[in-house]
Amino acid sequence: MDTRRPVNLTDALASFDDVYSPRIVARMNDYDVRIAKTEGEHVWHVHDDTDEFFLVLDGRFDIAMRDRHGNESTVVLHQGDTFVVPKGTEHKPSSPGGAILMFEPSGTSTTGDRHEGDIPDHVDSTAGHEL
Amino acid sequence: MDTRRPVNLTDALASFDDVYSPRIVARMNDYDVRIAKTEGEHVWHVHDDTDEFFLVLDGRFDIAMRDRHGNESTVVLHQGDTFVVPKGTEHKPSSPGGAILMFEPSGTSTTGDRHEGDIPDHVDSTAGHEL
Repeated sequence: MDTRRPVNLTDALASFDDVYSPRIVARMNDYDVRIAKTEGEHVWHVHDDTDEFFLVLDGRFDIAMRDRHGNESTVVLHQGDTFVVPKGTEHKPSSPGGAILMFEPSGTSTTGDRHEGDIPDHVDSTAGHEL
Repeated sequence: MDTRRPVNLTDALASFDDVYSPRIVARMNDYDVRIAKTEGEHVWHVHDDTDEFFLVLDGRFDIAMRDRHGNESTVVLHQGDTFVVPKGTEHKPSSPGGAILMFEPSGTSTTGDRHEGDIPDHVDSTAGHEL
């Protein structure tokens, strides 16, 4: 990846079809900027050591979360909405269709340090792919 | 700032008018997600210890850079374009009008560790403001 050239997000999103399979569009310090298409249910998972930033680029993206008592709540996000899932928070994304941008430390797995149940076939357990 | 509520970038941009005066829309780990309106010439400056990520949300945003030999080049960015200015790179943004999103370590100054000449009145030397 030539980091000295701009990457356009619209072009980048048009370059692949997979859902829940992030592409790395930029690296800064030891962080990745990743984009992903979203559709269907992700898996309950948790990142013990890092927050996770989301920006919805297109469509709708929901994040179900559990607090320390096991109570669930869901934030419903539309285009232009930003949200941070705090470290240590169990969460499960879902989407009727959309695209997101994420900031997270390089190496962070899409399915967290721990996940619940089987990983669905349409969810790619990865630290991100090159564009 | 309630970090548990989504922030919409369109609403956030509509909440202020100043140019080159970033607002912090989200924090994740020890990083800020900031947005700014852009118009006119910024100032030549350098961040010795951090890369800086830019996403153009609206309009046009140019970044002039100098290499180690003092040679200048400029990247011209439009809506949806992303770009990383590597740490230690002298750079000067300019814009005919636009809006950007930035990702950088909390505390990073808009005018860097060093800058060249006087800071113009329309450039806010700051580590970002609350929305």
